[in-house]
Amino acid sequence: MFVEKIHSPADVKKLTPNERKILAQEIRDALLKRSSIHGGHFGPVFGVVEATIALHTVFDAPTDKLVWDISHQTYTHKILTGRNYGFIDPARYDEVSGYSSPAESEYDLFEVGHTSTSISLAVGLAKARDIMGGTENVVAFIGDGAMSGGEALEGLNVVGELNSNFIIIFNDNGMSIAENHGGMYPQFDELRKTNGKSPHNLFKAMGLDYMYVAEGNDIDALIEAFTSVKNINHPIVVHIHTEKGLGYKPAMEHKEDWHWHGPHDIETGKSPAMSEGYESYPEITGKYIMDWVQNDPQSLVVSSAVPAAMGLNAERRHALGKHYIDVGIAEETAVAVASGAAKRGAHVLYGTEATFLQRTYDQLLQDLATNHNPATILTFDASVWGMRDFTHIGFYDLAMMGNIPALRMLAPTTVEEFIAMLRWSLAQTDGPVIIRVPGGQVRHSAMPDKIRTDYSTNTSTVTHRGSRVAIFGLGSFYPLAVETARQLKDELGIDATIVNPQIASDIDTTLLDSLSNTHELIISLEDSIIEGGYGSKIATYLGRTSTKVAIYGITKDLYDRYNPTELMRTNRLDSTLIVQDVKQTLSL
Amino acid sequence: MFVEKIHSPADVKKLTPNERKILAQEIRDALLKRSSIHGGHFGPVFGVVEATIALHTVFDAPTDKLVWDISHQTYTHKILTGRNYGFIDPARYDEVSGYSSPAESEYDLFEVGHTSTSISLAVGLAKARDIMGGTENVVAFIGDGAMSGGEALEGLNVVGELNSNFIIIFNDNGMSIAENHGGMYPQFDELRKTNGKSPHNLFKAMGLDYMYVAEGNDIDALIEAFTSVKNINHPIVVHIHTEKGLGYKPAMEHKEDWHWHGPHDIETGKSPAMSEGYESYPEITGKYIMDWVQNDPQSLVVSSAVPAAMGLNAERRHALGKHYIDVGIAEETAVAVASGAAKRGAHVLYGTEATFLQRTYDQLLQDLATNHNPATILTFDASVWGMRDFTHIGFYDLAMMGNIPALRMLAPTTVEEFIAMLRWSLAQTDGPVIIRVPGGQVRHSAMPDKIRTDYSTNTSTVTHRGSRVAIFGLGSFYPLAVETARQLKDELGIDATIVNPQIASDIDTTLLDSLSNTHELIISLEDSIIEGGYGSKIATYLGRTSTKVAIYGITKDLYDRYNPTELMRTNRLDSTLIVQDVKQTLSL
Repeated sequence: MFVEKIHSPADVKKLTPNERKILAQEIRDALLKRSSIHGGHFGPVFGVVEATIALHTVFDAPTDKLVWDISHQTYTHKILTGRNYGFIDPARYDEVSGYSSPAESEYDLFEVGHTSTSISLAVGLAKARDIMGGTENVVAFIGDGAMSGGEALEGLNVVGELNSNFIIIFNDNGMSIAENHGGMYPQFDELRKTNGKSPHNLFKAMGLDYMYVAEGNDIDALIEAFTSVKNINHPIVVHIHTEKGLGYKPAMEHKEDWHWHGPHDIETGKSPAMSEGYESYPEITGKYIMDWVQNDPQSLVVSSAVPAAMGLNAERRHALGKHYIDVGIAEETAVAVASGAAKRGAHVLYGTEATFLQRTYDQLLQDLATNHNPATILTFDASVWGMRDFTHIGFYDLAMMGNIPALRMLAPTTVEEFIAMLRWSLAQTDGPVIIRVPGGQVRHSAMPDKIRTDYSTNTSTVTHRGSRVAIFGLGSFYPLAVETARQLKDELGIDATIVNPQIASDIDTTLLDSLSNTHELIISLEDSIIEGGYGSKIATYLGRTSTKVAIYGITKDLYDRYNPTELMRTNRLDSTLIVQDVKQTLSL
Repeated sequence: MFVEKIHSPADVKKLTPNERKILAQEIRDALLKRSSIHGGHFGPVFGVVEATIALHTVFDAPTDKLVWDISHQTYTHKILTGRNYGFIDPARYDEVSGYSSPAESEYDLFEVGHTSTSISLAVGLAKARDIMGGTENVVAFIGDGAMSGGEALEGLNVVGELNSNFIIIFNDNGMSIAENHGGMYPQFDELRKTNGKSPHNLFKAMGLDYMYVAEGNDIDALIEAFTSVKNINHPIVVHIHTEKGLGYKPAMEHKEDWHWHGPHDIETGKSPAMSEGYESYPEITGKYIMDWVQNDPQSLVVSSAVPAAMGLNAERRHALGKHYIDVGIAEETAVAVASGAAKRGAHVLYGTEATFLQRTYDQLLQDLATNHNPATILTFDASVWGMRDFTHIGFYDLAMMGNIPALRMLAPTTVEEFIAMLRWSLAQTDGPVIIRVPGGQVRHSAMPDKIRTDYSTNTSTVTHRGSRVAIFGLGSFYPLAVETARQLKDELGIDATIVNPQIASDIDTTLLDSLSNTHELIISLEDSIIEGGYGSKIATYLGRTSTKVAIYGITKDLYDRYNPTELMRTNRLDSTLIVQDVKQTLSL
């Protein structure tokens, strides 16, 4: 076994061409076994095994700088740079992150999880090298899906002005997470069909030198190409044609399903079946969308390359027909398109992961809110129970979006409330609305027929009227408010008032005025960082009163692969700890 | 005079070719007179007079939809769509905004002030039109400078998938605000030199149809071109070559100075001289940069198309040589480049207008803060005294950036403090730092030799130790804190403690603990919206204590061409009003 003996790129350089081929197979075997047990990104990883081996054979990392776009494709890179244990030893699978990580290795230059950043980050490395008299190669490795992102295209333009070594490996597998979208892709097809000769070449139009490698999964061909550009004195794009998921039939046949995949049976590719009646917000959203579009001729669903977040599989997307547009990995444009379509009278729904919506602060404020166009945006995984990788945290969103003027943000606590908010928002014409889809376990309302139907005012709903203490439970933390109230009654005999805020971007000042006259302590619980969040608005508003305020949420910090339960306990988001705090605050 | 008789595009359509030429001259005369008295955008406006007349001659707005990029080029459009009064009647100059504005006219579709948004917004209009069975033309009018922005490039890609009418007028005048930057620009030159025949064509590489019009300031040629694409059944780019500032010699000879220009003498183009010893933060910054770069071989200055914000005129930029990089209108890439260069060991300074830095929330968090790379970023006009147009408000920045983890934000109160922070930040290696350059009058420290030199801790400086009331005056509002303290003493005999927070992103909890034990009321003043800002962190932190907290700042809302003094008074940012509040809060 070679894979066990690889401890650094030097060990890769020693191998013969044939041994490298065997290594590639060993790596695929290890990756397949790990994925079957552990899950993780699959297609992107399997497609670049050969390219990664070739890179470390030709270039001299860490002196030469390799920047990986998104970096969920770095598994092989990690295996070749001293971290094979994380892929060949099941007991150590969790010791490596799914992305490049400077904390793990000097071979990793950046923590990268959002797309389209590699070229611009690498330009910085190259510019600094040139100032400081360095001579290393700077290599940005980017996929075709990532090329639709604004930051990547901006970067391509800037590279055109560099007069020094800069190598872009353009990994073209003809896929994004789902299919690619946009006018550049048929032109990439043309380049593949013409062996790089087609005149319509995005890279040349950006003033860059260009080379095409048809056999992007042939180590020898790649080594030859990379060797020919090593130490080049100007920027060049090496366009390599690879196959996503290569080496595993299910992944080659169902590329979208296998972009990322959970644990599965190696023979069949099948995963353990979902438990009976399993519910998820993406699936609930997808069902709602299909029904809505069928009944609303003015409906438009906007996606930015992650349609699965809205429960839209290929079949559903096809059924949506002209009522669906995927702009590719281009969140900024997604928000602008949503604004423009709403301006023209369409009923617009755009949904994506909260962490990716971070790309759109300016578009939310300028293109959308400033224009009061009534588009509805859904943010998924904006929760401690959402994605937990360093670069995919979703719970910063409230601090980012909740303070944008003229942007209404709603936080449902149950499926029924979510649907009611969605129905209201898609029908209203006042302005943009963001619905923060709850995280964690899917919950249902006890009295679905009593759900509020109008969310146009900043009023919050008092679900239980008590005294002394009032607890605001925003969105997915509402159940924690209820549980805390129960415990306050049991342990301290306090019959606390319970509030479902519903509106996350603005506070109900009328309610707060009355509560502060009748209650000693107001508690706010939010599934978000505290700073810039919902509770801070309450604390600010009541600052001059003698009512005490206790705000609970997540401390402003960076988090990586955390345990949600531990994270909540550390932040005292625990009914028992909150009751202790109440005793102390009210000196009981 | 024709210009006085134009009340709608219908009046333009009636004119003969020769009358249109006369109209163009009348418009330039009116614009020149207005600019000499009122100031405003100049070069972009003068370059598109003919194109605008041609557009309204050929297309049928408001049925046909015209989307203007940035929209500081819409003066002629406004003259032709019922708003000539704002340009020919000096008494009414202020009645029209400098940007397109739906509030002003149905001919304006969006409030647009940031670049590169027109194509994506127009895609939304087109997509909605197609769903709803409309037949109007959708036209996006975008300049070459704006084409370097990610959102524009994303939009170009998305347009390539539209199978319906979509017209992009690419207004190529060979300039951004300053010179253009990036590899696409020499290729645009090639297209101009080859009359559109050069094979390296960005638009064709994005799968778009393309047409070149050499005489972009010839109304007849433009009318012919626009007529040929009117009602076209697929997307096309009409590349028109215009001259920025055409018709006014000073503006043609000094294009950068005349992109925007203040009141001036029509004959000479000269503006009233600055008063003796006039100081501005851009000029102070520019001087510092020139000196710093001369003495630091590892220094790198990054600009995103607004070098003037950092006081870098053409001469200074030239002198900076390899230590300067302008990425064009591409703020996201600017942050990524800054991060990459800092990672490689360069000492990096990036500066831009706060309103444009809004483009970079995700890059600040992901590309920069998550990677702890020590780049320094300066935000200008982050103040009520900054730019006051609807789309250029700078005081949202603290709410946007102050809650990003691992991103240190500093707020100097004087020139000396600003320089001390800059010096410290450029030397430290812990992580990224944003310095919020003060707004309003440039102030100096009374004791420059006593300025704090280390800003690595979250400690704030108590500048006067008093009792009962403590006043935090953040950044440019520090003088208001001092004035308020003076008045508290005079009127209520309260000797208030005064604090200069200095750190805007994090609070000094040790100081707050001690103050809350010894003071009854803590006041915080910030040149920013209140929600998500600095004071809200204090209010949240002290919520459980019996110390009262009064947070002053701007109410979260949209603002357009406001009067700073009025805005401050409305928000009770006035020492007299604050003293009244103190009396009430402490029931004195």
